[in-house]
Formats: sequence, C-alpha cells, structure tokens
Amino acid sequence: MEKQIELKEITKQEVDFAQWYTDVCLKAELIAYSSVKGCMIIRPYGYAIWENIQNILDKEFKKTGHENVYMPLFIPESLLQKEKDHVEGFAPEVAWVTHGGTNELEERLCVRPTSETLFCEHYANIVRSYKDLPKLYNQWCSVVRWEKTTRPFLRSREFLWQEGHTVHATAEEAKAETLQMLNIYADFAENCLAIPVIKGQKTDKEKFAGAESTYTFESMMHNGVALQTGTSHYFGNNFSKAFEMQFLNKENKLEYMYQTSWGVSTRLIGAIIMCHGDDKGLVLPPNIAPIKAIIIPIGKDEAVFEKANEILSNLNAQGVTTKIDLSEKSPGYKFAEAEVRGIPLRVEIGPRDLANNVVTVVRRDTGVKTQVEIEKLLDYVLAELKNMQKDMFDRALERRNGMIYVAKDYQEFKNLADTKPGFIKTMWCGDRACEEKIKEEIGVSSRCIPFQQENLGDKCICCGKKAKHMVIWGKQY
Amino acid sequence: MEKQIELKEITKQEVDFAQWYTDVCLKAELIAYSSVKGCMIIRPYGYAIWENIQNILDKEFKKTGHENVYMPLFIPESLLQKEKDHVEGFAPEVAWVTHGGTNELEERLCVRPTSETLFCEHYANIVRSYKDLPKLYNQWCSVVRWEKTTRPFLRSREFLWQEGHTVHATAEEAKAETLQMLNIYADFAENCLAIPVIKGQKTDKEKFAGAESTYTFESMMHNGVALQTGTSHYFGNNFSKAFEMQFLNKENKLEYMYQTSWGVSTRLIGAIIMCHGDDKGLVLPPNIAPIKAIIIPIGKDEAVFEKANEILSNLNAQGVTTKIDLSEKSPGYKFAEAEVRGIPLRVEIGPRDLANNVVTVVRRDTGVKTQVEIEKLLDYVLAELKNMQKDMFDRALERRNGMIYVAKDYQEFKNLADTKPGFIKTMWCGDRACEEKIKEEIGVSSRCIPFQQENLGDKCICCGKKAKHMVIWGKQY
Repeated sequence: MEKQIELKEITKQEVDFAQWYTDVCLKAELIAYSSVKGCMIIRPYGYAIWENIQNILDKEFKKTGHENVYMPLFIPESLLQKEKDHVEGFAPEVAWVTHGGTNELEERLCVRPTSETLFCEHYANIVRSYKDLPKLYNQWCSVVRWEKTTRPFLRSREFLWQEGHTVHATAEEAKAETLQMLNIYADFAENCLAIPVIKGQKTDKEKFAGAESTYTFESMMHNGVALQTGTSHYFGNNFSKAFEMQFLNKENKLEYMYQTSWGVSTRLIGAIIMCHGDDKGLVLPPNIAPIKAIIIPIGKDEAVFEKANEILSNLNAQGVTTKIDLSEKSPGYKFAEAEVRGIPLRVEIGPRDLANNVVTVVRRDTGVKTQVEIEKLLDYVLAELKNMQKDMFDRALERRNGMIYVAKDYQEFKNLADTKPGFIKTMWCGDRACEEKIKEEIGVSSRCIPFQQENLGDKCICCGKKAKHMVIWGKQY
Repeated sequence: MEKQIELKEITKQEVDFAQWYTDVCLKAELIAYSSVKGCMIIRPYGYAIWENIQNILDKEFKKTGHENVYMPLFIPESLLQKEKDHVEGFAPEVAWVTHGGTNELEERLCVRPTSETLFCEHYANIVRSYKDLPKLYNQWCSVVRWEKTTRPFLRSREFLWQEGHTVHATAEEAKAETLQMLNIYADFAENCLAIPVIKGQKTDKEKFAGAESTYTFESMMHNGVALQTGTSHYFGNNFSKAFEMQFLNKENKLEYMYQTSWGVSTRLIGAIIMCHGDDKGLVLPPNIAPIKAIIIPIGKDEAVFEKANEILSNLNAQGVTTKIDLSEKSPGYKFAEAEVRGIPLRVEIGPRDLANNVVTVVRRDTGVKTQVEIEKLLDYVLAELKNMQKDMFDRALERRNGMIYVAKDYQEFKNLADTKPGFIKTMWCGDRACEEKIKEEIGVSSRCIPFQQENLGDKCICCGKKAKHMVIWGKQY
C-alpha cells in the first residue's frame, strides 16, 4: 500500500509542535521529499488546495483590473544590482546559474527570488505617457531563495506564489492600490481560510528591501507563533529612479512612476495547517477544502454501495465536491485517513442506516456525529459546511484574542515573552534602536503597527520617551 | 503612447516570413524582450491566450482522472544521469546552478529541462502495489533548455508547458494512456485552435530521449514548414529499470512499472500565429481568443457612446467577452490595432448607424462587413463566431492538403523538396541510414509515420528495398 497511516505516528501538538507539523504535511499527503535538498514536492492533495487559493484570488485580482503576465525565470546579475537596498536584501540568498550547457555564461544569472527588477525594466520600456498608466500586472510562478533551514510551505528553497507589480501616475493611486490588495488578502484569509488577521504596517526595520512602506496581515498559529502570511509594498519612486521609469504627465513633463508590489505564497497552506490542525491531522475550512465530504460505506452490502453512490452523485451534482472510499481498508482506517486529510464532513452509511433511511454525518472540526435523513442530506451538508466555516473562524479568533497580552513596563514585557506564547502589545517610540534592543533582550520582533491603534500609555516600553505607536510583538516563523 | 502601430512596420509574409512572425509577436503585444537573453516576457494578451489553453486542457486532463502536482525546479546532476539516453539528450542543453548565495554547491543542479527523473524518483517512493496504480499526474510549469538560436514561442530558453507523467500496472494500459492523451491534444488543436493535424508515430531517430515510442501531432504553418506541436511518449520500462520503480503485482511478484509522459507548450501560440495570421497581423480562432469582439464607436456623439456601452454590457452578460475602445485614437488606428491583435469580430457604430438602429460587424478572417440590426446582434455574433471557427479550420485544412505532395522516386523527392514548400509523402524501408541520407541530401526530416497509412508503392524511396511505412517528410521549426 502506498501509505500506512497509523495515528500514533502523528506526534501530538503539545509534545512537539514542529514535529506535529511535519507529520501532518507528510501523512495528509500534502508534500513529499525528494533528492532535491530544501525543496518539496507538492502532492495532488496539497496542490489542489493551492489551486483553490489561486482560483479565488485570481478572480479577485481580475475583478480589480489586474492582468496576468509571465516574466523570465532568470535575472542577470547587473539588473539585480540596480536598486541598492534590493540587491542587499536578496543577493545573499539567491541561486546562481553560471553555465548554459557546456559553456560558462558571460554574466551569471540568478534564479528569481522576486521579480521587481524585471517588471521595472519592462515598465520603463512600455510606458511613455500617463495615458499608459496604470499598469496592473500579476504573475503566478515559483521563486527561489537559498534558505539554510527549510520547512514545508513555511521556508523552502523554492516556493509557489503570486507577485503583483503595478505602476501608477500618482502616489495617491499607488498607495490606494497597496491598501486595496492588502484588504483583498485579509478578506480572503478571514473568509476563505478562516484565519483571523491583524492588518498593519511593518516598521522600517522589518519592511521589504527597497520599499517605502510595507503593509502586512499577521496571523497567529496554534502555538502562539506569528506567521507573516502576505505583504503589500508601496515603493514610491525608489525603483523608478534606479530604473529610469519615467512618463509624460498631463502637464507634458517627465515624472517618475509610483509603484507597488504584493504577494502571497504557498505559505498560506502552512498557515491553514497550523491555525486549524489538531492531533488527528489537518482540519480544512470548507471554503478551501478540495473535497468537502467523503462517503464511507460500512460493510459489504450491495444495497449500501448503491445508496452510497447515489448520494455521491447527488452531492456532486449540487456542487458539493464529494468522494467515496471504496477501498478494501477497514472503516476505522478509512475514518482516520479522512481525518488526517481534514475533509470537513464524513458521511457514514451501513446496512442499519440504510434500513432507517439515514446516514451519520461527522464534522471534522468538532467530531460531532449527527444522524440525518437521507432525503434531507443535501440541505444538511450545505448548512453544516457554512456552520463549520464560521465556527472555525470564531474559534481561531477567540483563541488568538486570548493569546494577545498587553505589557505596560519592560519587566512585564520580558515576563510575558518568556512565559506566554502569543502576541504582546506595547507602546513604542518609533526608534529602531529600541526595536533592536527588544529583539535582542526580549526575543520578540515587531509584527506590525496595527491600523487599529490603542492608547496603552504615553511612553515607549523600552526607552520611556514619548510613544508614537502601539506595536504588536511576537516570535515568528 | 505605449505603442505606435504602423501597418507598414509589419513585414509582409511573402517578403520575409520569419520577420513577419516576429513583427506580429511584438505588435500584437504577445511578447516583449528584456535584458534576459533568449527568454521572453509573455505580455497580458499573450498570457491570456495561454490561460485559455490551460483552462481547456486542464479540464480535459481532470475529466480523464489526472491530478496536478508540483515538482522541484532543480534536478541534481546525479539524478539526471540515471537514464543513459535521457541524459545524453538533455545534458548538453541545460542551465546549471552552481552556487547558492555565496556558497558553491556540493553537487550542481540543473534547471529542469523536463521532469521525468523527478517523477520517477517520486513514483519509486510512493508506489508499493498494483493497488496504488495507476498514478496519473500532470504539472504546469516552466522549463529551461539552453538554445543557441531562439524565437518567440517556438524556441526560447525558458518556456511554459504542461508535462503529464503517468505510471501503470500494465503495458497495455500505459499504451492506451499515451494514445488517449495524443487524441486529447489533437482534438484540442483542431476544435479550439482550428489547426488541422496529422497524428502519427515518430521514427526511432526522432523519438524522445529515453522513450520506447513517441507519438506526435504535426501541423503545417502558412509557409509550408512543419511545427511539432505536441508529443506523447510511451516509455515501457526504460526509466522504471533505471530508477528501480517496482510494484507488487496481483500475483504478489515485483514488476517494473509502465510509464508515459506527454506535453504541450506555449509553442501552441506560435502555431496559432503561423497557421492563421496574415499581413495585417494575428487572426485568432474564436474558441481561443481572449477577446471575442471589440466595439469601436465612431465620432464623439454621446448617444453613440451610450448605445455602444449598452451593447458591450449585453454581449458580456451573455458570455461573449467583449471590449470597447474609448481611447482618443482615430477610428482607422483603432481598426488596425484590433486587426493586428486578431480580435475575431469588430463592431463599428456611428451616428448614422445609431439612427438606423444598426451596427457594422467586420470579420477579422475575411474582412467581410455586414450591417446588423442591433436587436439581432447577439444572435449574429454567436453564429458568426461559430462560422469563423469552422471556416478557419476548413481553410487551414484546404491549404495544408494542397501543400502535401507525393514523391515516387528519389529525384522527384529532391525536386519537390527544393521547389515546393510543404510536406512530402513517400514510402520508407524503416532504416535509419536512409532517413539520415534523406536528411542530408534532400534537407527534410521525417515528421511522422502517420496512423493513416497509404500504400504509395512497395519500395523505399531511398534504397529501393522493401518499404515498411509511408512517412511524411518536411522542413521543421
């Protein structure tokens, strides 16, 4: 057999969260390893989740006027070096192609870690006047960053993502774009992935290499650790100036373009796993689950198989993607397999059920079993998928909110960071020196300056000088 | 302005077909060049064509039970070398990554030219018994081949494609899969791209590096040159043995898996351009066109704009993807722009049209103009899109058939090859020596051994020995 799931093989979360995570990635058949170190194979079930993410987001991008393009995989070293901060941020972690066939290349090429430089060069070539603006491009592709320690979905030498790159005639329009895309991401995370997020701005220390400002939506995993799930950057003219991206404005004068970029990646799958998973494996929010329900017939009764197949056809015909497990495994084994894969609803049917014209429906998130009359099954399934989606979000929100603490002084800050997994809110003066001291002494980094500010006091938690912002701190993936 | 189309800038086909092709790729904004030599940027309009290709084929793949996966971009040199023919075929033309960040890699990695080796390793890891078979995987990705001379879509150092890789418990099943996928491709080419194809088998000389047999569908471009548009390979156990891909069969004995792979690429876009394009630019078959109709209002009459927008909404609401050109360019300029982009139908509306409650519809392929009552426009558009699709296929078929010649002796073969662009059918003994001699002396290569054989005689055109097959020969891209 391809795979022998034994539940004891999944490490318990409280025993070793990191090992639990890896176990789930493998046992739920989201990924597999290969001889390519630091890279992962995304298996059909994992890739189907990514396809659902792509389909939903791509529609949102197109609705807001974005077009997809494809840029080359390679970036010549000289092009990468054009923007100073950008090359400093990325050059240390790129893969270099030095040979084509048997010939050494005249100039080495890096495998794209991100494509700002290629988009900049292209925009400089194709935009002449304000009439050509805005250009709202996006690409779905893979990127490479030569990480030393890797983990499936969270930090992999290659990962799949989308990168939006836009140029505008005014700073206002570009800033509005940056926030529009952040909101699309955040709504998607909350409504489809059932992951509550905190929207805010990154500090200068934590912003993207080359950006004027970086906006983020931060989520908290089961173990209280933060995951930066996606970012949206406003570049101002930083890259425009480096790449001579000018256009004739309405006054017929040359002006630099205003630019944004924004991206989310397969990291979102890591967030789903760590936000919702439990000791039995994955728990998928119905809105993103590739399979919404699985039917498991009990016994070998022909009439049961027939009814099970009829239910299968009905659910699929009504748009509820449903599978049936007709393998020779035992029911208990099939239950465990459906659980580890996080399929929202399990529909059991045996001879006695058939005689009573009912099935047993089990919710993956709560384990609650309900007998449902077969003729009412479709309505029940549709309603329960909706309920489960909402319940998963509500539970994640409650758990997260219960793990956000307020620190009023430096000692309390240290105590909280040492003893309480989760986020800590404090006031901050805005100085990088304080941020670095906190990182070093307390071991947490700034997650973001939330848009929703609260006034927790007047003084910076670190230096005691006048506070500028409330910041959320935490340990991060 | 982003782009100044001047028709004189498009070279005429009969003057220089290659230059015409490049002109169309650029002027229709399918691609752009960048500082990455030998690679292309696929612009929104070109990428939209690829997205349509992807959507249609992906549905067919899934309907026939295939699942999408994602394999790493890199292949360790040792893995590439496992299958002798395969490494010989690909090693000379791959890009090598030698450094990650500042460190030299212990083993260099090639950027995948194709992913057989990765799939083989994976299948060896996940398949144990016949119960795990078949595995029907596909991936959409980009691949890299370090070509010396490159041309947009036809031969590019990086291109987008899909590669299907399947393993089966029996040779029969694998062979059936190979042919099933070839048929899916061929039907797609004929029904969606309006490109007539000839299905057949590649000779041993022309087959894929490592395959037992390669099936192909060949199409003919406007200039009589062949384009190998897609291939489907049956591997037998070649790779299975090299990669130790064994499974327990029903008799509980270890057996090697039977394998296939099949792929089509952005080359299909090149085929569309060269099969249907004319001196005005691209001509897109309606079934694959990203924009089915474009509305061009004439003059500056508010009532005309209003009616034009109403027509736009109606057509889009009925699923006919329609755009409107409201730019400040002249009507003639807009017509030329719509023509170069190959939009199937142009809908013109001016004040006089509005007064008569009509529009003028112009077909891109024929240039025929028809006055249509506005209230009958939707039906007319739907019917004309269908007609145009069929007419384009019929014309391409007629042209192609008119350019297929029969050679009965070697001198006639040579004369035809020297004077008549197109394909030449001859009998062949099956010997590689004759095939190589023909290639060298006559300058044509074997396109395929068509499934639909004809008996043109008993003797090989080259050596005069007993003929085994009818072969189609031609010059190729």
